[in-house]
Amino acid sequence: MSLMSPEAFEESLKSLRPRVFMNGKRVEDVLAHPVTRTVVEANKASYAWAQDPRYRGIMTVESPLIGETVNRYTHVSGSIEDLVAKAKAGTFTAERLGTCIYRCVGYDAFHALASTCWEMDRDLGTEYYPRFLEFLKRVQREDLAVAGALTEPRGDRKKRALDWPDPYLSLKVVERRSDGIVVRGAKINISGAYASHELVVLPQSAKTSGEEDYALAFAVPTDAPGITYICQYSPYSAEREMADDIEELGNPLFGQRETAMVVFDDVFVPWERVFHCGEVRYSGRLVTRFAKTHRMTCGGTCKVGFMNLIIGAARLIQEYKGLEKAAHINDQLTEMVTLRETGRACGLAAAQMGREEPLGSGVFLPDELMGNVSKLNICNAFWRVMALAGDIGGGLIVTIPSLKELKNPETRAYVEEFLSFGSDEPAENILKVHKLLQHWTAGQHGVATWHGAGPVMAQKIMIQRVVDFQHEKALVKELLRLKERSEVGS
Amino acid sequence: MSLMSPEAFEESLKSLRPRVFMNGKRVEDVLAHPVTRTVVEANKASYAWAQDPRYRGIMTVESPLIGETVNRYTHVSGSIEDLVAKAKAGTFTAERLGTCIYRCVGYDAFHALASTCWEMDRDLGTEYYPRFLEFLKRVQREDLAVAGALTEPRGDRKKRALDWPDPYLSLKVVERRSDGIVVRGAKINISGAYASHELVVLPQSAKTSGEEDYALAFAVPTDAPGITYICQYSPYSAEREMADDIEELGNPLFGQRETAMVVFDDVFVPWERVFHCGEVRYSGRLVTRFAKTHRMTCGGTCKVGFMNLIIGAARLIQEYKGLEKAAHINDQLTEMVTLRETGRACGLAAAQMGREEPLGSGVFLPDELMGNVSKLNICNAFWRVMALAGDIGGGLIVTIPSLKELKNPETRAYVEEFLSFGSDEPAENILKVHKLLQHWTAGQHGVATWHGAGPVMAQKIMIQRVVDFQHEKALVKELLRLKERSEVGS
Amino acid sequence: MSLMSPEAFEESLKSLRPRVFMNGKRVEDVLAHPVTRTVVEANKASYAWAQDPRYRGIMTVESPLIGETVNRYTHVSGSIEDLVAKAKAGTFTAERLGTCIYRCVGYDAFHALASTCWEMDRDLGTEYYPRFLEFLKRVQREDLAVAGALTEPRGDRKKRALDWPDPYLSLKVVERRSDGIVVRGAKINISGAYASHELVVLPQSAKTSGEEDYALAFAVPTDAPGITYICQYSPYSAEREMADDIEELGNPLFGQRETAMVVFDDVFVPWERVFHCGEVRYSGRLVTRFAKTHRMTCGGTCKVGFMNLIIGAARLIQEYKGLEKAAHINDQLTEMVTLRETGRACGLAAAQMGREEPLGSGVFLPDELMGNVSKLNICNAFWRVMALAGDIGGGLIVTIPSLKELKNPETRAYVEEFLSFGSDEPAENILKVHKLLQHWTAGQHGVATWHGAGPVMAQKIMIQRVVDFQHEKALVKELLRLKERSEVGS
Amino acid sequence: MSLMSPEAFEESLKSLRPRVFMNGKRVEDVLAHPVTRTVVEANKASYAWAQDPRYRGIMTVESPLIGETVNRYTHVSGSIEDLVAKAKAGTFTAERLGTCIYRCVGYDAFHALASTCWEMDRDLGTEYYPRFLEFLKRVQREDLAVAGALTEPRGDRKKRALDWPDPYLSLKVVERRSDGIVVRGAKINISGAYASHELVVLPQSAKTSGEEDYALAFAVPTDAPGITYICQYSPYSAEREMADDIEELGNPLFGQRETAMVVFDDVFVPWERVFHCGEVRYSGRLVTRFAKTHRMTCGGTCKVGFMNLIIGAARLIQEYKGLEKAAHINDQLTEMVTLRETGRACGLAAAQMGREEPLGSGVFLPDELMGNVSKLNICNAFWRVMALAGDIGGGLIVTIPSLKELKNPETRAYVEEFLSFGSDEPAENILKVHKLLQHWTAGQHGVATWHGAGPVMAQKIMIQRVVDFQHEKALVKELLRLKERSEVGS
Repeated sequence: MSLMSPEAFEESLKSLRPRVFMNGKRVEDVLAHPVTRTVVEANKASYAWAQDPRYRGIMTVESPLIGETVNRYTHVSGSIEDLVAKAKAGTFTAERLGTCIYRCVGYDAFHALASTCWEMDRDLGTEYYPRFLEFLKRVQREDLAVAGALTEPRGDRKKRALDWPDPYLSLKVVERRSDGIVVRGAKINISGAYASHELVVLPQSAKTSGEEDYALAFAVPTDAPGITYICQYSPYSAEREMADDIEELGNPLFGQRETAMVVFDDVFVPWERVFHCGEVRYSGRLVTRFAKTHRMTCGGTCKVGFMNLIIGAARLIQEYKGLEKAAHINDQLTEMVTLRETGRACGLAAAQMGREEPLGSGVFLPDELMGNVSKLNICNAFWRVMALAGDIGGGLIVTIPSLKELKNPETRAYVEEFLSFGSDEPAENILKVHKLLQHWTAGQHGVATWHGAGPVMAQKIMIQRVVDFQHEKALVKELLRLKERSEVGS
Repeated sequence: MSLMSPEAFEESLKSLRPRVFMNGKRVEDVLAHPVTRTVVEANKASYAWAQDPRYRGIMTVESPLIGETVNRYTHVSGSIEDLVAKAKAGTFTAERLGTCIYRCVGYDAFHALASTCWEMDRDLGTEYYPRFLEFLKRVQREDLAVAGALTEPRGDRKKRALDWPDPYLSLKVVERRSDGIVVRGAKINISGAYASHELVVLPQSAKTSGEEDYALAFAVPTDAPGITYICQYSPYSAEREMADDIEELGNPLFGQRETAMVVFDDVFVPWERVFHCGEVRYSGRLVTRFAKTHRMTCGGTCKVGFMNLIIGAARLIQEYKGLEKAAHINDQLTEMVTLRETGRACGLAAAQMGREEPLGSGVFLPDELMGNVSKLNICNAFWRVMALAGDIGGGLIVTIPSLKELKNPETRAYVEEFLSFGSDEPAENILKVHKLLQHWTAGQHGVATWHGAGPVMAQKIMIQRVVDFQHEKALVKELLRLKERSEVGS
Repeated sequence: MSLMSPEAFEESLKSLRPRVFMNGKRVEDVLAHPVTRTVVEANKASYAWAQDPRYRGIMTVESPLIGETVNRYTHVSGSIEDLVAKAKAGTFTAERLGTCIYRCVGYDAFHALASTCWEMDRDLGTEYYPRFLEFLKRVQREDLAVAGALTEPRGDRKKRALDWPDPYLSLKVVERRSDGIVVRGAKINISGAYASHELVVLPQSAKTSGEEDYALAFAVPTDAPGITYICQYSPYSAEREMADDIEELGNPLFGQRETAMVVFDDVFVPWERVFHCGEVRYSGRLVTRFAKTHRMTCGGTCKVGFMNLIIGAARLIQEYKGLEKAAHINDQLTEMVTLRETGRACGLAAAQMGREEPLGSGVFLPDELMGNVSKLNICNAFWRVMALAGDIGGGLIVTIPSLKELKNPETRAYVEEFLSFGSDEPAENILKVHKLLQHWTAGQHGVATWHGAGPVMAQKIMIQRVVDFQHEKALVKELLRLKERSEVGS
Repeated sequence: MSLMSPEAFEESLKSLRPRVFMNGKRVEDVLAHPVTRTVVEANKASYAWAQDPRYRGIMTVESPLIGETVNRYTHVSGSIEDLVAKAKAGTFTAERLGTCIYRCVGYDAFHALASTCWEMDRDLGTEYYPRFLEFLKRVQREDLAVAGALTEPRGDRKKRALDWPDPYLSLKVVERRSDGIVVRGAKINISGAYASHELVVLPQSAKTSGEEDYALAFAVPTDAPGITYICQYSPYSAEREMADDIEELGNPLFGQRETAMVVFDDVFVPWERVFHCGEVRYSGRLVTRFAKTHRMTCGGTCKVGFMNLIIGAARLIQEYKGLEKAAHINDQLTEMVTLRETGRACGLAAAQMGREEPLGSGVFLPDELMGNVSKLNICNAFWRVMALAGDIGGGLIVTIPSLKELKNPETRAYVEEFLSFGSDEPAENILKVHKLLQHWTAGQHGVATWHGAGPVMAQKIMIQRVVDFQHEKALVKELLRLKERSEVGS
């Protein structure tokens, strides 16, 4: 069985030396820094669940590739059942972590690569697919945590990459050598890579002729020479750094989603780790196959889990205040449940309507239309759920004092008296639940929901590409018995 | 094979003599009257499809009950696959008819009856289930069209039925005889019963002790003595009566949805047709089992088909005007497609998450939460799709002149010149597509979508009953490690 | 005092002979035909109110032009107070008629013409303004009902008018004579012109060089030779034609909005009635000035009145059913009231923020941004109010039988028993209120609200033209003390 | 002229010694602590503007009370013009500060007190009004900053205050002495009081017989003995404490909104500062008069200003990326502008429709319906504007690194290259604009918009109280000529 223990995972990270900066300073130890530590904890949980008899069914799968039990996040779906199981795992991890399982982007990238490498080899006679399989086998055998990267800084959006004065605003090959390639540029908004073993890189978008140097996919160790991580620094980062005890925080162990800009300053990638290089016609397929897979995940699975936490917290506050019978709050909870179930339905439908793509590849991908619909819906739904939770939670979810006041003899009694709503619930619990809702309703999740897996317009464009209206028009013509020009006369 | 031909169906209706009134006059012949004819046509189509090799897979199924191929609309689902097939048939019939397949309510009522009769017999030792099966076998063997009825006039909603001065505002047993029961009252908003063979009646709502006379389910021939149909009469009815040619109308053959108030003026029902009589604890189950089944249908399947017609017509008008590249219209079509696919996803998920209920009964029903979510979503979605179609279609979809102008020598040339947008499309087609959108955006469908399968609040109440928030609260407690009172100290 | 009595108005129409077709037949007498009669009644009401002591303050104003009391619908606003009074009159007429006051478009066109004729004369030395004033004085002195017309059939929207094979898809000058011009083409969606005395014509859109023959504004008598009206024919038209008694109908006296396509088949217009001819730079101003004035009206005033009727009817049904305490219905009514008041606020703000335009002209127009915002808001708000009314009203608002059943001895008792909800209210009243809601929720008003005063995109385009974001960006730069490039160093 | 200079304001705060706690520690100096400093700065700006020739017209007014020019935020509106000027000042201050002007709640409380003290004296012969006027004159003469407080912790919401085990969960008189009263309890969510001179306290809600000890309004110096401030502590507080330079922050000088729980631990209030004590019938009026005034402000004025900042920042990012022509972004900006203008319209309409209340008091208050509608609308609108800004701004608005990276030699070049989008704009500016949008879209403002001036349900309740539907029902009855029961016959 190729499953690493959580302790072994933590140990394995110690041998990596990623170059990480946050808030203007070097992060010497990703495991020790309070902010980067949250990423370690989240990934670590995925190792623990895989060995937990209660969750093993969700988190592991038999790999036909190596004939062993592997973590689901290293497995390329080979059936509708796999896709459905993938969807369920997405909800499970999200509702336990309250943040990203950082192996997710890599997992979805594996799907795009397996499908497209197979296709390139078939069409072009390249040898990407066996290379990729070798890489994936190692990932499975060693149970590696693999992050993924697509989004790029980009220059003036009115112009093509070839017309930008700075060619490196999109990741670019700067040298082709006999043993590999050298790349320069950056990826932005990359989730949790510095606490993973490997980083899989895909192109940001479709490419056309002339853009061969931008048509790139590969894998690198996260501490490869030339790679620098410049971390996000948000109010939530500062709060975590300031905390005496993580119990003071909204999501104590796992935090908000942590990302970084990943700079590639002449990074060398040996050929056996290069999965796409110059075949511009296939760059777009890598992207759309990743997109529909990741949009199923972001839209129809992980947000369902997040909503469970938000709904649970809103319900608890309703109960603390004795408002269980308030019709307008129950109506709001009903709306939240409806939005959650709608998300779940779209995720499930995207999986159920999935198919092998390309035929013969053995790779199953979700339905393109439904995958995009999942994400497009959840964008609005998640903001609405946040907003409703903000109304139910009350002003205190942003005006709550620090939990430290419970240790301050001058204020403790006041806080206990006035912030318990006369209920029997310990003030500490009440403050913590408010803090959790603060985390959700006054944090990064609204914006992140728009942009994780691509902004709204990206889904709309895909939907417009997929739908050609032939079926719909034919129905109208038949119902109305519309005539051809020739039947009508002059 | 127990399948009637469409011609035989029409013939079979001739032997029925339902007492029908419309617009203050008796409808002597349901087959001949232009309005009631639309119901005949819609039901007839269901017979034709069942014999059409292209659609047989959708419209028929092997009945384990009689061991023959039967029309799907007479079959109680016995598996998840049956539920999924049911969902797909709902979309298929709707997008072909542009109105109700009037066998739908009966079909859904069969599910509620099979499940609950089985359960009553198990719990109470009654003998409803075999009775119901005998009835259903006849329906299958003779391939009968069966309508369904639930909604009642009701009196003052602040009071219980027992406190209304007029006890018949809900359908009531007025006499229990050795050979059967006599019922009095009315059902309202009943779709297409007068062009069906049989009418299955369920209670409108849950009952409690004292309301035994209202706890009623049974089947009657549609022309049973004492039954009177008082039909709706809308502007669309008038327009159809006035038309020289059905081609002038928005949905030429199948029309808008036709309903009637069904009055039961001391109607006798023999015991072998009575499936529920006085067992008040089970009335609510009949209703909620019907509701979730019908809400899956109304929410997640038939509206998907209707939306296809609306989208197709909007797209055609966009093309007639040369507006294919207009970004704002494509954005609106994308929104319509997204709403449609969301509906489809919820319908599919309700089927996929369905289960045998009660265990051992062999009856499969959709998931209760998802069935209700399907309908709640579509209520708003359908109005939005109508509205968007109204914006794309343009003012002409309500200001269009009669198709008769194309036969009027004084106006024909004007209409052809000015209402073809300079396109090559025959003016007749353009007028017809506008007329179809008028039918959808300026007709009864918005209101009908609210109320078919119950108003919005009915779904909300069911959702509130199903969700108890235990899972959600437990997640929060675990993530925040909330303490018990005893752990905190005083 | 220049006010015609309602009887005199009706009499005055008898001398006109407009060429009108409906449903493939000539309408010989606009006053007698049941459908066109509704337009006569609606306009007639505006004459009655002007003489009614209760409403005189709303419907009349002192004309500085002729020094007499005139109907407000013939008066060009000369102050903020006039604009506010105009807004209030819009709501008053709408809530009394439940349909258009058909003098409204002409009224708004007067504003655009007064402003732009004055400006053309100032800039170009033309003599349109005195001509227009002479025309307007006659309108005021004779208290004429004046309709307005802008929208045109148009050809392929991807192309300019000059590139259409049929040049008459937009109204065009075909001959310039010493005594006037001859025009050919058509206007579509024109409200109520055939029961007015005069028709004022504006261009549909801005024009550019080369399009001089399309840059046209003028007035014609409604029965000028060459003009043909081809009326809309909707289900509501048919229902009215079929009715034995107008009491059976949703809006008995005034009906739904009646429009026609107005064909100009070589219509001669003498120069003294031509107000714009070839000055392409000013066509757009006529349109945008009309648009903001009409959008204030359609958005912020008349829909407020319509909503009052819808809210009143929904409330009555709530009361008939004994549902006054139902929280979810009260919540829906609150939403409807909120949408109504928001509409009212935008209309009032558009008036209050209005200004003289151009300076010196004496013509006051509403604020351009707020005028467009009024309409854009109401588009969505009105659909929402319709939808909510549909939910409150219940399925019966579309499935209600004809009022004729109350005169049918075979069904009368049933209808009275079962459609009164056990209330003390006469069944006739209950049916009528349902019929009124049918008129609103299942009729032409949704689509009409999109398109009256222009579709959604038209408002968006205007808003995008008006807002340049300079103020907003300056605020950000100041708050953040953003630096100039030069201050930052390299 | 009674206007303090900003420097004098700051100096005046030094003589106050409020007892303030934040994050478990005493705040020794409100002027020095980085978080409380933001409140000082925001209030200070209101003194600066009043002396700035550019803004004097907005920020000052002639006081009829003392016959001198005073800061508008100390003046009770005595006319419609005053209300309109009040609305405009609300927008002005908000768009300059990007947070609360903390004198706002006190300003609105003055309106409620002036109106209700006058009324109590008239009705009950009390002497509150002269007392209040004396207090207000001092406020005007000394140009004091006055905060306001209403919201209370409250116990079990199912029960009345009298039934709570802890009677102090609502602020309560514990002793009535000859020289004044002693109060105990707390107010929560109180904005910026510790950097004001005075705190005006109103009841949280209407009171009934038996609740005399809770029917309370008064003024106290902010450092009165027994008062303790327990400040909110959010991620934004931590970030500000951690910052080396306020330029790193989203709203450098003025911050997010700062609130505190204000504990009254046996605070003595002399009678000349008590404005309401035991007259339970009038408590509700104080609340509703405050509410409509404050809801006009929160709904229709200050959020308009906030939206200007959000729109400005979103537009700048659009420009930095070269996306000025992207139709979908322009559509989103149009939606934001529409929401902003709708807010503005409601605020203006609430002012324009305002009236003297009670008649004879000389106090002008906004229209109750429109005041509540303003706030109800903006609740949803503000979340939507935040969400849209989040979509336009892009993922970087939450994943942006610290501005400190621009001073870090190891990362500076990377940040400058990759986070400038190839534009000519200094990276520092780009980071700052992202940081401002982070402040708005990922901060406390969503929740605060729900709850400032009361949650959604509070507005709905007021609307339901104000609207009785008599007008709407009468319109329907007239249009349909509904009959009385007696006219119909049996």
